[in-house]
Amino acid sequence: MITTSSLLAPVDDDLHILTENLKQLVGARHPILRAAAEHLFDAGGKRIRPAIVLLVARAISHHENSGRNTTGDITARHRRLAEITEMIHTASLVHDDVVDEADLRRNVPTVNSLFSNKVAVLAGDFLFAQSSWYLANLDNLQVVKLLSEVIRDFAEGEILQSISSFDTDVSLEAYLEKSYYKTASLVANSAKAAGVLSDVSEEIANNFYDYGRNFGLAFQIVDDILDFNASTEVLGKPAGADLASGNLTAPVIYAMEEKPYLKVLIEREFCEDGDLEEAIAIVNDGNGIAKARELALIHTEKAQNSLLGLSVSDSAKSLRKLTDYNLSRLY
Amino acid sequence: MITTSSLLAPVDDDLHILTENLKQLVGARHPILRAAAEHLFDAGGKRIRPAIVLLVARAISHHENSGRNTTGDITARHRRLAEITEMIHTASLVHDDVVDEADLRRNVPTVNSLFSNKVAVLAGDFLFAQSSWYLANLDNLQVVKLLSEVIRDFAEGEILQSISSFDTDVSLEAYLEKSYYKTASLVANSAKAAGVLSDVSEEIANNFYDYGRNFGLAFQIVDDILDFNASTEVLGKPAGADLASGNLTAPVIYAMEEKPYLKVLIEREFCEDGDLEEAIAIVNDGNGIAKARELALIHTEKAQNSLLGLSVSDSAKSLRKLTDYNLSRLY
Repeated sequence: MITTSSLLAPVDDDLHILTENLKQLVGARHPILRAAAEHLFDAGGKRIRPAIVLLVARAISHHENSGRNTTGDITARHRRLAEITEMIHTASLVHDDVVDEADLRRNVPTVNSLFSNKVAVLAGDFLFAQSSWYLANLDNLQVVKLLSEVIRDFAEGEILQSISSFDTDVSLEAYLEKSYYKTASLVANSAKAAGVLSDVSEEIANNFYDYGRNFGLAFQIVDDILDFNASTEVLGKPAGADLASGNLTAPVIYAMEEKPYLKVLIEREFCEDGDLEEAIAIVNDGNGIAKARELALIHTEKAQNSLLGLSVSDSAKSLRKLTDYNLSRLY
Repeated sequence: MITTSSLLAPVDDDLHILTENLKQLVGARHPILRAAAEHLFDAGGKRIRPAIVLLVARAISHHENSGRNTTGDITARHRRLAEITEMIHTASLVHDDVVDEADLRRNVPTVNSLFSNKVAVLAGDFLFAQSSWYLANLDNLQVVKLLSEVIRDFAEGEILQSISSFDTDVSLEAYLEKSYYKTASLVANSAKAAGVLSDVSEEIANNFYDYGRNFGLAFQIVDDILDFNASTEVLGKPAGADLASGNLTAPVIYAMEEKPYLKVLIEREFCEDGDLEEAIAIVNDGNGIAKARELALIHTEKAQNSLLGLSVSDSAKSLRKLTDYNLSRLY
């Protein structure tokens, strides 16, 4: 498996600054949030979302100066956009964990379990609010629209997931729509926003959007496969946790086509002893996981194709390698 | 006591449209939120915040056309701004009730108590998200900044209140700051935003801001007095509820200056039998409430003075009468 540290080398220093800024921002004025902030921003997140914003900014800068010898500079506004991206992402995780009553994420206790629902709601609201304010102060109406779309999509995704839990009629299209709302929208719109801040053409901005959309979908599909075949240690939560909570993902949707009995187990919400274990075994033994892997591959290739017009730079290479890294998580 | 229905006559039809739009918006696509939406937007809220936006819009229109005979038209963007205002306000109430574990508001069960914390977090996030998105689509960067400031202030206010609970060193300044964040910021910034959407001069826009700021502070002070001398029926929650939860308001801050023993009761968080009743009696018997009433009067007069430059219209009169109505809640 590829490690992220080598991948993100072109923006390594930037990500270090970003993490310190975020801890400072949330913790400094508010003792009640300080512990939560240290906890959230130290919790070993991979910072892939802000990294993509920073890599896009550097890749564009290199692209535009490709005649000259440049490392690809990024501006203060790109840094701020990367922070906004991570804040929105973190806020949504914190509130998701309240909604799902989750105790663990990335192997560490969640804010709601470690502190309380109260602190988790406050911390999430604070992060959303602060990000809205930073966003407005980037002084670019198009960027405000792109990111407010993300915030709206998150809420939509949370609700769609709640509505469709244990619904065995869920289609692959509905699954991809939900995955777009919950994961891909942020990557797509923030990558495009990085382009907009650099004043690229609409075509190039849309290529970054397509990269982010397809990378985000592939990332979610891989996460959903890992829910079945990774260890608790790697996942940071028990295997089959999504299925147990009624969140039906690509491997399950494919497996239900093959083995209708799986629907019976899901529809009775695993109420009998051994139901969940049996359902997990059905998914693991059939072709659902292989088909989901193919789906992840299709979106990975689309993401890679969206990068073809960029001139070669370390940052452009990293954007491509991130998509390979994502698939490599399966091996 | 003045009733609000006569006061808001110039925007009565507008408020009816607004309520239907809000129920539609939240409930139509999301069955999980439909019951919460009906519940929230039917719960007998007075709609004072959106009414102020609509009244400001009508008053400006009349002011600008004061040579002609006009009823003062409002635009679709002003209506949208009014909806955004009510959505942000409602979202903050829903999350506040989760944070405070409140069971009742305006005599009706809260969303968290009637449904669950999960639905309350989702509904609040959805309303905040939808309002961000509507806001961005008003296509006015200054308005985006004014309202994102409000969202940030709410989060700040929630946190300040959590930090300072049972803190007997709290100053009147800190109380006013918190009241600005939690109540006045929304009224001030949305009144100003209504002016900005109508392209008024900066001076007039700032007068609307001052009106909203001072009206909002006076409103909060009156609410805080009512916590002591209104019946449960009027309040929609038990009397002394703020004090019981450690939220120290103007009447308490004045009373602590007069009767230092009150601090003892508060600092031990009313742990002994009869502590809370004794504390409420101390506040009611001293001059704290009279002094708080004076403070509300000062801010009411400031609010009224901010309206002096407007030409006479039913809407301008309503803006003034709203400030009198607020004080009349005490009698």
